[in-house]
Amino acid sequence: MRIEQKLASLGLVLPPELPAKPGVSTPPHWVRVRRGIVYLSGQSARNADGTPAGPFGKVPSEVSIEDARVAAKGCALALLATLKREVGDLDRVSAWLSVTAMVNADPGFPATSAVTNGFSGFILELFGDEIGHHARVSPGMAALPGNAAVVIGATVEIDGGA
Amino acid sequence: MRIEQKLASLGLVLPPELPAKPGVSTPPHWVRVRRGIVYLSGQSARNADGTPAGPFGKVPSEVSIEDARVAAKGCALALLATLKREVGDLDRVSAWLSVTAMVNADPGFPATSAVTNGFSGFILELFGDEIGHHARVSPGMAALPGNAAVVIGATVEIDGGA
Amino acid sequence: MRIEQKLASLGLVLPPELPAKPGVSTPPHWVRVRRGIVYLSGQSARNADGTPAGPFGKVPSEVSIEDARVAAKGCALALLATLKREVGDLDRVSAWLSVTAMVNADPGFPATSAVTNGFSGFILELFGDEIGHHARVSPGMAALPGNAAVVIGATVEIDGGA
Repeated sequence: MRIEQKLASLGLVLPPELPAKPGVSTPPHWVRVRRGIVYLSGQSARNADGTPAGPFGKVPSEVSIEDARVAAKGCALALLATLKREVGDLDRVSAWLSVTAMVNADPGFPATSAVTNGFSGFILELFGDEIGHHARVSPGMAALPGNAAVVIGATVEIDGGA
Repeated sequence: MRIEQKLASLGLVLPPELPAKPGVSTPPHWVRVRRGIVYLSGQSARNADGTPAGPFGKVPSEVSIEDARVAAKGCALALLATLKREVGDLDRVSAWLSVTAMVNADPGFPATSAVTNGFSGFILELFGDEIGHHARVSPGMAALPGNAAVVIGATVEIDGGA
Repeated sequence: MRIEQKLASLGLVLPPELPAKPGVSTPPHWVRVRRGIVYLSGQSARNADGTPAGPFGKVPSEVSIEDARVAAKGCALALLATLKREVGDLDRVSAWLSVTAMVNADPGFPATSAVTNGFSGFILELFGDEIGHHARVSPGMAALPGNAAVVIGATVEIDGGA
């Protein structure tokens, strides 16, 4: 419960799941756990009631870099919420492996990494360098689900990959 | 042969490989199998003769959401054809792990997930929830190979990952 | 040292790491090694002093396909430099697994694969077909870090995945 105590000491709360969409039969399979590896679907920041928090739109013309950076941290909280629901205790995470950090970007926007550092810096702060560091791709996308400014997916090892 | 019987009962046929391009020396290495995991390159829908089926262009300005959704299912058939060629029997699939579902999208198009649900829903229908569910990223791209409307890559576990 | 001898015989030199950016506290964690798999962050081509080599901008309106193709090979050298620093000897690579090859593309540019074949062809030349072949996604992005024309990330197996 070390990680969750750290979250609490930072005043951070993990958001609940996104409510099911009426009329969509495909269940939101956010996560797959297999042989010590957790595959997490791309997620955007969520409000305290589980709904998409935004910001929505293009970085930087519609959403500022700073707001997008906060959204990237919100993606981390959303992924952690899913991870906790799935594996029970976030302390089971033994290594972040790879991160797909996607920014809803204006064409040619060169600072997508500045945005997604909001995610990576937070994960490092929370898990420490040894467990938290990860490989990352950080492209700017033409579009993202729900027009979210930032969506992030990840692959994480638990229990030493046992 | 359970999965292939299911495909047959749905009237679906797996397409042959894309014919080699004249003058392109790089072989189309669609797939890598290693330690119980199959890594599948991004593929678009194919015709019965193996050529790209389309639709081509941007969703939704040039290709409708519904047509793109059908194309996403076509990507699934193309991936299954490669998988079958590589591992022999689709029943060896023990878990879909992660899916990179890419839509050739107009800037800011918010409904990429509605398109790629055409893929995920079909995989769930075919393999069932337990084996078929997967983590997914579903971004909108500025461009895709051959200007295909949808291209999907995936990672799949076979034989329990043995 | 077989691979490095091959690089030397081709007159190719692996570039040094990107110099740390002043004022950026997040360390550039380019790589994660875990249970015989190396996860490599997206990288662009680098100069002999480690700085970004370019070309910068959109393919093909600002950067020609041929220049982007050379840049894709530069991405390979950057990844190999990181890999060598991390695992010591490039001969430890037992299989390239998957490659995320991203092109900074004009909307609808259909030939992203022609660009990223500059990467894949070089890896095949260097490691041979058996070790070098890989699954690949090759989308065109709205934006890439530093406005690089091409950024490529990869997952590689070492020591047979032991």
